[in-house]
Amino acid sequence: MGGDFAPSHVVSGAVEALGESGGRISLILVGDEKRIRSEMDTLNSRSGAKPEIHHASEVVEMHDSPNTALKAKRDSSIAVGLTLHREKKADAFVSAGNTGAVLSASTLILGRLKGVARPTIGALFPTESSPCFVVDAGANVDCKPRHLFEFAVMGSVYVSSLLGKSEPTIGLLSIGEEDTKGNEVTIETLEMLRKSRLNFVGNVEGRDILKGKVDVAVCDGFVGNILLKFGESVPGFLKSRLKEFAAQGIMQKIRLLVAQGGLRSVLKNLDYQEYGGVPLLGVNGVSIIGHGGSTPKAIKNMILRAEEMVRWNINQKIQSAMEAQG
Amino acid sequence: MGGDFAPSHVVSGAVEALGESGGRISLILVGDEKRIRSEMDTLNSRSGAKPEIHHASEVVEMHDSPNTALKAKRDSSIAVGLTLHREKKADAFVSAGNTGAVLSASTLILGRLKGVARPTIGALFPTESSPCFVVDAGANVDCKPRHLFEFAVMGSVYVSSLLGKSEPTIGLLSIGEEDTKGNEVTIETLEMLRKSRLNFVGNVEGRDILKGKVDVAVCDGFVGNILLKFGESVPGFLKSRLKEFAAQGIMQKIRLLVAQGGLRSVLKNLDYQEYGGVPLLGVNGVSIIGHGGSTPKAIKNMILRAEEMVRWNINQKIQSAMEAQG
Repeated sequence: MGGDFAPSHVVSGAVEALGESGGRISLILVGDEKRIRSEMDTLNSRSGAKPEIHHASEVVEMHDSPNTALKAKRDSSIAVGLTLHREKKADAFVSAGNTGAVLSASTLILGRLKGVARPTIGALFPTESSPCFVVDAGANVDCKPRHLFEFAVMGSVYVSSLLGKSEPTIGLLSIGEEDTKGNEVTIETLEMLRKSRLNFVGNVEGRDILKGKVDVAVCDGFVGNILLKFGESVPGFLKSRLKEFAAQGIMQKIRLLVAQGGLRSVLKNLDYQEYGGVPLLGVNGVSIIGHGGSTPKAIKNMILRAEEMVRWNINQKIQSAMEAQG
Repeated sequence: MGGDFAPSHVVSGAVEALGESGGRISLILVGDEKRIRSEMDTLNSRSGAKPEIHHASEVVEMHDSPNTALKAKRDSSIAVGLTLHREKKADAFVSAGNTGAVLSASTLILGRLKGVARPTIGALFPTESSPCFVVDAGANVDCKPRHLFEFAVMGSVYVSSLLGKSEPTIGLLSIGEEDTKGNEVTIETLEMLRKSRLNFVGNVEGRDILKGKVDVAVCDGFVGNILLKFGESVPGFLKSRLKEFAAQGIMQKIRLLVAQGGLRSVLKNLDYQEYGGVPLLGVNGVSIIGHGGSTPKAIKNMILRAEEMVRWNINQKIQSAMEAQG
């Protein structure tokens, strides 16, 4: 029931994922049974496999407070879905609903992994080379050095599996490359990371993300969230500027029409929907949180990503990495 | 002597500014007299006006520590130039040199305006409409609510003169629009701003900057600097992506060639050089700090901007605004 286009986008994304997975996954759709069934009826799915439906009578709305939603709506699709996961009736949970509510419900219902004080979400940024995982992307705004250190460890494990790199490069997002640059928290964090077993390259700057200088960029969730939303707004800004240029005259319009394919391909690279949702790392389960405006394609990608994370044994790896770092 | 291409870019930018100013300004070039003179000889300036030269025997290098450079190099072009300004032999100071050194030297030599605890630098971001002034852009990394409040007041005054808006809109950069969203410092700052006489619209998010939702976006210098450098890296990222597209084949190449003018005009909008340097607000004088890689055009724009700031009586206005806010 999550997201601005629920359950329509969720149901079609789910059906697409089932089709693409080639039988590797089965799905349980949690929410208002009637509405889900009616969505499924409108889809003329060629795929034989059908998602199961598990009824939940309540919905956490996008404007509900994450802190009170769980208590006020005990039969919400978020709470019911996560409980199915905790009870091992599902191996992973995926939602495009109220981000704060999914975050706190995941931590509360699934619990934290041993040694993890703050579960975190990270976001993949496109770069000139392979993507850069910015962690934390908004779950934890006020952080201590220990928390940033945890984000680095969890980010390293995630990216290692995702990109198939045995020792991903880790950078600490700061305002200069030198070890002395940063704020109080990052300067202390830098010392911890220098002593760690991670492949830590030191401070990186805002410009290093799109350059793809590191595989993982570590920051608190305040910085990460602002950066993520700024990045998401770049395609819209460019489109508005191109439109303005095209409005200057017929020749300008034709020029841009000729180049449209190229422009579209470049803007697509900036489209965070392609990556489909951000993983919540550090909880005792697999939970992926999608954008409220998720398209069916984004939902599909989230589901396939969740299946991968289960296959990678991501939590066992995080646990081992946390223990190895001490 | 400041910047990666000093004194060449500085001298040609200065000569250009003199030509464009139509006699409104006169310039003193501070630095190694011989090198400056030889640069000026290579320029075949049609303009009759020539900058004066004031010799300074030392140079603060880009890698020098801002904290020790001032003491170690008492005859640096930065120290000498700022002293000329303090002694009223110049009305403003402009440099593309070591940012940290210009910042601390400006505060130390010129002094702070009454009521200002933390002088600040702000940066103009292009948007879908009129530019957005992000303040602080890197001068103050660890900030208290009172400091962010000061940035808002100074940013409001600056943008009011710059864009000719009597009551510029002010937003507090945060991770959600609701008043409850933010980190400890911004939540407390929001209360102060709500009670102020500023045209405060509340929290704004990372995506609101390029949309041009507010005239001034307030944040600490850690966030502002990361955002500024991320923004500066967008054109390079897009060019690399377009190049990749063009490399796919001759048709793709031709398509982009046809559109080149439009693309250049769009990328130009993202070119921060156009705005030429960031003003240091809150010191008892006019000091503008340029990018190390400043082009002659950026230097020219910095000089013309400095002249404007003097004309606006910017410091008198900041002083009055600080007093009015209490």
